[in-house]
Amino acid sequence: MKAPEGIDHVGIAVYSIDKHYSFYKDILGLRLLKIESVPSQKVKVAFFQIGLSKIELVEPQGLDSPVATFLDEKGEGIHHIGLTVSTIDERLKEIREAGIKTIHDQYIKGSDNAKIAFLHPSSTGKVLYEFIEKTNNNNYDEENGHD
Amino acid sequence: MKAPEGIDHVGIAVYSIDKHYSFYKDILGLRLLKIESVPSQKVKVAFFQIGLSKIELVEPQGLDSPVATFLDEKGEGIHHIGLTVSTIDERLKEIREAGIKTIHDQYIKGSDNAKIAFLHPSSTGKVLYEFIEKTNNNNYDEENGHD
Repeated sequence: MKAPEGIDHVGIAVYSIDKHYSFYKDILGLRLLKIESVPSQKVKVAFFQIGLSKIELVEPQGLDSPVATFLDEKGEGIHHIGLTVSTIDERLKEIREAGIKTIHDQYIKGSDNAKIAFLHPSSTGKVLYEFIEKTNNNNYDEENGHD
Repeated sequence: MKAPEGIDHVGIAVYSIDKHYSFYKDILGLRLLKIESVPSQKVKVAFFQIGLSKIELVEPQGLDSPVATFLDEKGEGIHHIGLTVSTIDERLKEIREAGIKTIHDQYIKGSDNAKIAFLHPSSTGKVLYEFIEKTNNNNYDEENGHD
């Protein structure tokens, strides 16, 4: 398949964004891009810019959030890797034809209306990979939502 | 502190690089940069380029490798995040002064003679962060060591 173009972000599962905010913002010195809720994933997320990539803190909203299950089983830690792709549905078709299971057969709407889909960790050496196709309106409001 | 400049790589713990090689090279379509042993960490590693970052597969060499312990406890999966920094010993001093524990007080030699050090996950929300200061001779031989 056409190779992913970069690491868009690495997702970190946390019980509380507030608890970890200071480590990323004040200690590591990263720039907060935004904090927002993503209803399709039942999470609240905080994005910090690092070079051309981002660190995404992912906090569950509701006990039935997939991230809540992850936290119950494994505790806090690295959760997934988001890879930038173009024409996501073509990439999903190609990767399924190569024998890789996907959690989503077609994209769903993620943060900032990006088109996203997850590959199934059972096909990827237990790594949760997310494909992300950015839309043209992925603009971030700096410091939005946190003071 | 002066913020890290980017995500150099994401490290994936694997029992066998050979077993996962095809997923990254043939299915995702990433370019293999190199495969090498890193005696200081008792691992064999494979680097695949993805945009300006890399995916690093990390295979233990010896039962006393730190990665062997990780695999025993958690199985295969995402292991660490490598952040590019400048003047690594200054960054380590700053981050310890901010109350963050580090596994290494000063850098050790990593892959390609880069200066590396790990932060302690107990201080970072259970995320194993690696600081990396590249030397000028971080050149990769494409496809080196694998056919």
